[in-house]
Amino acid sequence: VGKAPLPAEFDLIARYFAPLAAGAPGALGLLDDAALVDVTSGHRLVVTVDALVAGVHFLPDDPADLIARKALRVNLSDLAAMGARPIGYFLASAFAEQDEQWLATFTRGLAQDQAEFGVSLMGGDTVSTPGPLTLSITAIGEVGIGRELRRNAARIGDLVCVSGTLGDSALGLLALREELPQLSTADRQFLIGRYRLPEPQVALGQALSERRLTRCAMDVSDGLAADLGHICRASGVGARLEWQRLPLSDAAAAALAIHAELRERVVSGGDDYELLFTIAAAQEPAVLALGERLGVRITRIGVIEPGSDVVIVDESGAPMRLRHAGFRHF
Amino acid sequence: VGKAPLPAEFDLIARYFAPLAAGAPGALGLLDDAALVDVTSGHRLVVTVDALVAGVHFLPDDPADLIARKALRVNLSDLAAMGARPIGYFLASAFAEQDEQWLATFTRGLAQDQAEFGVSLMGGDTVSTPGPLTLSITAIGEVGIGRELRRNAARIGDLVCVSGTLGDSALGLLALREELPQLSTADRQFLIGRYRLPEPQVALGQALSERRLTRCAMDVSDGLAADLGHICRASGVGARLEWQRLPLSDAAAAALAIHAELRERVVSGGDDYELLFTIAAAQEPAVLALGERLGVRITRIGVIEPGSDVVIVDESGAPMRLRHAGFRHF
Repeated sequence: VGKAPLPAEFDLIARYFAPLAAGAPGALGLLDDAALVDVTSGHRLVVTVDALVAGVHFLPDDPADLIARKALRVNLSDLAAMGARPIGYFLASAFAEQDEQWLATFTRGLAQDQAEFGVSLMGGDTVSTPGPLTLSITAIGEVGIGRELRRNAARIGDLVCVSGTLGDSALGLLALREELPQLSTADRQFLIGRYRLPEPQVALGQALSERRLTRCAMDVSDGLAADLGHICRASGVGARLEWQRLPLSDAAAAALAIHAELRERVVSGGDDYELLFTIAAAQEPAVLALGERLGVRITRIGVIEPGSDVVIVDESGAPMRLRHAGFRHF
Repeated sequence: VGKAPLPAEFDLIARYFAPLAAGAPGALGLLDDAALVDVTSGHRLVVTVDALVAGVHFLPDDPADLIARKALRVNLSDLAAMGARPIGYFLASAFAEQDEQWLATFTRGLAQDQAEFGVSLMGGDTVSTPGPLTLSITAIGEVGIGRELRRNAARIGDLVCVSGTLGDSALGLLALREELPQLSTADRQFLIGRYRLPEPQVALGQALSERRLTRCAMDVSDGLAADLGHICRASGVGARLEWQRLPLSDAAAAALAIHAELRERVVSGGDDYELLFTIAAAQEPAVLALGERLGVRITRIGVIEPGSDVVIVDESGAPMRLRHAGFRHF
C-alpha cells in the first residue's frame, strides 16, 4: 500500500483541522485571517508557546496521536503553572513526509485531548518542510487578575510541594532505549507511558490560583533541581529538599532498587510536567485536602530557606551531588 | 573568521530576546512559563499564527534582519485585516546553522519593526533543528467587540477597494531570480524591496474598523483573484474587477510594458500584503479621504455582484483568463 500524499492545504484544513475548531466560535471556522478570543471580565489572558522538532523533542516513529497529545499537554502544563483556565490553542505545523493516515491519527489524538481538557483548536498554519516534522503550539487561557502564579513569589519558610511522582518520564526514556532490561515489562511500560503522555495538572493549577493557596508555581520540565533553581533565582531565596520525601511511582522505585545511580534522573531528568509550588506552612492542610478532592497526590518535599542554592539531602543528611544541572534533550 | 556557535538557550534569551520584551510588562522578562495579556474592556483579542520555513517561504540567504521583519509583518498584516490594534507577538524559532552574528542581525530587525509598529516580543521558544531554519510567529492584537473585519461581510453593490499597489512582490521574486533582466536596476531593486519587506496596512485596518467604514476585509497574501475569491465564497457573492483600475507601481508598469504576459502575476502572484476590502458606495468619499490622511493609496477596483465568480475584465471588456488560481510558494 503506497503512501497517500497530503491533500492541498485548503482540503487538509477542511477535512482534518476545521472539525477540531467546531467548538470555538472565535475560530471562525479557520476561514478568516485570525481568531477572536473573548476574555472574561476581571481576567487576563495567559499565552504560552512551545516548539517541538522530530528527533529532538520526540522520536520520529512515536505514535502520531501521542505526539499530538504530548505537544498539546506540554502547553497545557505551562498554563497550569500560571493557574490559568485553558481556552484553546493554535497549531503551526511544518509537515515533512507525513501521509494522510498519519495526519488522521495525529488529529484524532488532538480531538481526544480537546475533549479531556475542554479546549478547541482556534487557528494555526500548515506548511511543508524538507526538514523534520516541526510543531509549534500556542496555548491560551485566562486567570483572575492578581491570581496568576509566578516563579518569583517563594518566601523564606514556605513549604515546597510537588504533584504526582517524579522521574518517571526520564526513566521512561531510558526504558524506550532498552537501557532498563532488568525491569519488569509492566514497570517499563508504565514509565514509557509517562514519558509519552504527561498528565498536565490543569485542575490543580486552577484550584491553587482560585483558592489563593499559593502565588508561586511552575511546572517541572527541565528537572526538579533546575526548575526549583529557577524559582529560587526569581524569588531571591534558597531551598532544601529531602531525597526521602520525593514522590516515586512503584515503577520508578523498582528501577532505583536495581540501579541506585539513576537517583540523579529523578531530580535532574525533566519532562515530568508536574506542578512545583510553594505554600505558607499554615496552608498545608488545605492543600493536602485539595489534592485528595482532585485525586492528585501532593507531597511536601522541602522548605524555602535564606540563600540561593537548591540543596537536596539524602538519607544520611548529606547533600546529593548532581552532575547535570538540567535536562538535555536526546 | 570561524562561526561562533549559538550560546545556550538561557544566555541566548537573556542577551538577544529579553531586550525585545523590555517594553511589555506582561512578558515577565521571558522568565516565567507564560505571558500575561490585558485586554481593554469592550474589546476582544485577535490572534494569528504564521509559520515560515527557509527555502520555502524565504530564501535562506536573505538578509537576517529582513527575514525577521517580513515574518513579523506578515502577521501584523493578518491583524490589520481584522481591524485590530497590534499588541505583541510570540516567536518560536527552530535554529539550524545560524550563528551568533546572524542572530544579532535577526533580532536587530525585530527591534526595528517593534519600534515602527509599537509591539513587543512577549514570549516564545527557542529550539534547534537538523532541518532548515523554521520560524513561527503568533501575533496578538485587540479589536472593539462588533468591529472586527471579516471575510463574510461583502454585500451585493459594495465597491471593492485595495490599498497600495499590486504585483510588486511577485515581480520582485522574478527579479531576484534574474528573470527580468531588461528592467532598469532601480525598478528591479524597488520590486525586490517590496518582496522582501511588505508594508502591512496596520493603521488603515484599524481606522476602517474604528470608523465603521467597512465590515469586510482581508489581506492579499494568496493573490488578488484567489483572496477576493475567499471573500466571495464566505459572503455568498461574486465580484467584477476592471484590469485597468488595478493600482500598479511605476516599476510594475515598466515590467508589464516589457513582458505583457506578466499581467497574470499582478492578479495571481500573491505576497502583496495590501488590504482588500469592500465598502458601501456611499462611503467612498470618506474612505478616499482616510487614505489621503494616512498617506495610503486606496483604489476602487470593482464591484460586488450576484453570483459566485471573480471576473476580471481587460481593456476590451473581455474576461481575463487566469492559469493559476492562487499563489504557490517557490
